[in-house]
Amino acid sequence: MGHDSKQISVLGLGAMGAAITRAWLAAGYDTTVWNRTASRAEPLVAEGAKAAATAAEAVAASGLVIVCLLDDASVGEALADAGLAGKDLVNITTGTPGEARERAGWAAGRGARYLDGGMMAVPPMIGVPESGAYVFYSGSRESFAEHHDALSVPASARYVGEDAGSAALHDVALLSGMTGMFAGMAHAFALMRGATSPSGFAPLLVEWLTAMAGAADGMAAHLESGDYTLGVASNLAMMVQGNRTLLRTAEEQGVSPELLAPLMALMERRLADGHPDEGTTGVVDLLATSGRGR
Amino acid sequence: MGHDSKQISVLGLGAMGAAITRAWLAAGYDTTVWNRTASRAEPLVAEGAKAAATAAEAVAASGLVIVCLLDDASVGEALADAGLAGKDLVNITTGTPGEARERAGWAAGRGARYLDGGMMAVPPMIGVPESGAYVFYSGSRESFAEHHDALSVPASARYVGEDAGSAALHDVALLSGMTGMFAGMAHAFALMRGATSPSGFAPLLVEWLTAMAGAADGMAAHLESGDYTLGVASNLAMMVQGNRTLLRTAEEQGVSPELLAPLMALMERRLADGHPDEGTTGVVDLLATSGRGR
Ligand SMILES: NC(=O)c1ccc[n+]([C@@H]2O[C@H](COP(=O)([O-])OP(=O)(O)OC[C@H]3O[C@@H](n4cnc5c(N)ncnc54)[C@H](OP(=O)(O)O)[C@@H]3O)[C@@H](O)[C@H]2O)c1
Ligand SMILES: NC(=O)c1ccc[n+]([C@@H]2O[C@H](COP(=O)([O-])OP(=O)(O)OC[C@H]3O[C@@H](n4cnc5c(N)ncnc54)[C@H](OP(=O)(O)O)[C@@H]3O)[C@@H](O)[C@H]2O)c1
Repeated sequence: MGHDSKQISVLGLGAMGAAITRAWLAAGYDTTVWNRTASRAEPLVAEGAKAAATAAEAVAASGLVIVCLLDDASVGEALADAGLAGKDLVNITTGTPGEARERAGWAAGRGARYLDGGMMAVPPMIGVPESGAYVFYSGSRESFAEHHDALSVPASARYVGEDAGSAALHDVALLSGMTGMFAGMAHAFALMRGATSPSGFAPLLVEWLTAMAGAADGMAAHLESGDYTLGVASNLAMMVQGNRTLLRTAEEQGVSPELLAPLMALMERRLADGHPDEGTTGVVDLLATSGRGR
Repeated sequence: MGHDSKQISVLGLGAMGAAITRAWLAAGYDTTVWNRTASRAEPLVAEGAKAAATAAEAVAASGLVIVCLLDDASVGEALADAGLAGKDLVNITTGTPGEARERAGWAAGRGARYLDGGMMAVPPMIGVPESGAYVFYSGSRESFAEHHDALSVPASARYVGEDAGSAALHDVALLSGMTGMFAGMAHAFALMRGATSPSGFAPLLVEWLTAMAGAADGMAAHLESGDYTLGVASNLAMMVQGNRTLLRTAEEQGVSPELLAPLMALMERRLADGHPDEGTTGVVDLLATSGRGR
C-alpha cells in the first residue's frame, strides 16, 4: 500500500472516467487506463496514458486503482480476475450505500483497502476548481489520508467517515434534495407560463430558493433537539392554510398540483396529529417506513 | 389621489398588519389603524397610532389605505361601507391572482386606484432591511410610483406589472418552488437520519441546493428558446437511470419515496415521449392541465 507515487490506474473510460483520467494526466500522473471497449482508450493514450489490455493488468500497474463503471454489477464483473491484495481500491461508480458496504467487504476479503466515492459533478466540471465540483469519500481513513493529493486532482475530496456507505448516502441525499427543488422549480415555471418571461422570473426564483435553502439549518436544529417548534416564524397551521392558496392558484393557472400534493398531504397529517406550532420538520418523521421515525 | 403625504391607514392588525404598522410609525408616518377586534389596536395607539372606530373611518382618514386581512372575503366584508373614491387602495392580503384581478375591478368600480401586494416576508423580517424581505406589487403603475417611498418602509417594494394578479402569481410561484425544495430537504434529512448529525449535514445541503438553484436559469433558457436540450450536462436518460439509485437508497434507508415519486414519474413520461437529451424542463409542459403546454 504505497505512498502517493503519482502512479494511478483508471478502469472505465465513459464520460466521467475519461474526464477524471484527463485531470490526472494534466497533473503529471503516470496513468494506466482500461476500458471494456478498448477503442475508448485511444484518445487518452494519445494524450499520454498507458493502455492495459485487461482490467487485471490495469490493476497490477498501480497501487492506487480508480474504478468508474456503469454500476456496481459491472465493478464485480470487471474486477473478477484482478489481484487486489495490497491495492487501494477507490470505487467512484454510483451505487447505493448498501452496495458500497458490500463492495467494501468484498474488497477487504481480497486484501485491498477500500474507498467509495460519490461524485457531486458532471464531466465538464472535472479538473475545473472554480466549478465547485467535489467527491464524497468514505471507507478506509488511512487510504484517504495517503492518497489525498491524488484524489483531490479531478475535484476536491471530502471524507465523510469510515462506513463505506456514507459517501453514497451523502451523494443520494443531496441529489434527492435537488430532485425536490427541481419539482418546485418546474411547478413555479408552469404557473408563470404565459404571464411573464421565464428569464425575467428565473433570477427571482434563484434568489428566493437560495435565501430559503437556509431553512435546512432550522430543520437540523429541530431534529437534533427533538423540539420542532424552535424558531418557527411561519408555523404549520399557517402553512397548511397557505397551501390552499397555492392549490387554488395552480387550478386558476391550469397547472397540475401533483408535484406539491404529497408534501401538502404530509403537512396536513402532521397538523392533524396535533402539531400546529411546528414548521415542516415533522414531515421527516412521517417519511420513515420502518418505524425508525417517532 | 394625494402625493406621498406621510399619511397612511392600515386595516387589519394581525401579526403582519401590526408589524407593518410599527414600521410606518417608526418612519414617522401619521398612521391611522383599524381592526375588527378593537382591542388589538391598543398597543399600537400606545406607540403613536390613531385608532379609527370603523373601517370606513380609517379609509376616510388617509389617501393611502393598506389592507392586511385574513383573506379576500374579509377584505370585501371590511370595506363594504367604505368610501373608496379617490383613494389608493393597497391590498396585501394573501389571495390568488384571480381574486386580485376581481378585487381590482371592484375597486375601480368604486373610484379607487388599486395595488395588490404579495409579501415575501414573515413579521419579524418587517422593518429590517438586512432581512431581505420584500413585497411584490402589481396594478396601478401611477399609484405605485407615487407611493413608492411609503410602500418601501416595511420591506422593499418590487413592481411586477399592471395585471393586478401578477403580484399574487409571483408570490405563489416562489412559495410553490419553496414547497418543492422543502420536500426535497425533508427526504434528504430522512435518508441521513441516524447516519450523521443533522447539523453536520445541513451545511452540505444548503451549499448544494444553493449551487443547484442556478438550474432555474437553464430552465428559463429552455422555455424561452423551445429547445430543452440547450447546455444540458446531465440528460434525462441519465437522470432517470440515476433516479433508480435514489429509490433503492430510500428503500435501504427505510424512507418513503412519496415526495420524489411524482417528479420521477413525469421524467419517465417525458423520456418515453422521446426526449432523452433534454434536462428536466419538459416536465413543465406535462404539468399543464388545460392544453396550454405543448
Ligand atoms: N456522467 C456524469 O455526469 C456522472 C456524474 C456523477 C456520477 N457518475 C457516475 O460515474 C459512473 C460512470 O459514468 P459515465 O458517465 O462515465 O458513464 P458512461 O459514459 O455510460 O460509461 C460507462 C462505463 O462503464 C463501462 N461498463 C459498463 N458495463 C460494464 C461492464 N459490465 N464491464 C466493464 N465495463 C462496463 C463502459 O464500458 P464500455 O465503453 O465498454 O461500454 C463505460 O466505460 C456511473 O456510475 C455514473 O453514475 C456520472
Ligand atoms: N404572518 C405571516 O407570516 C404572513 C406572511 C405573508 C403574508 N401574510 C398575509 O397577511 C395577511 C394577514 O396575516 P396575519 O399573519 O396578520 O394574520 P392574522 O394574525 O391571523 O390576522 C388576521 C387579521 O384579519 C382580520 N380579519 C379576519 N377576518 C376578518 C373579517 N371578516 N373582517 C375583518 N377583519 C378580519 C383579523 O381581525 P381580528 O383581530 O378581529 O380577528 C386580523 O386582523 C394574510 O392574508 C396572510 O396570508 C402573512
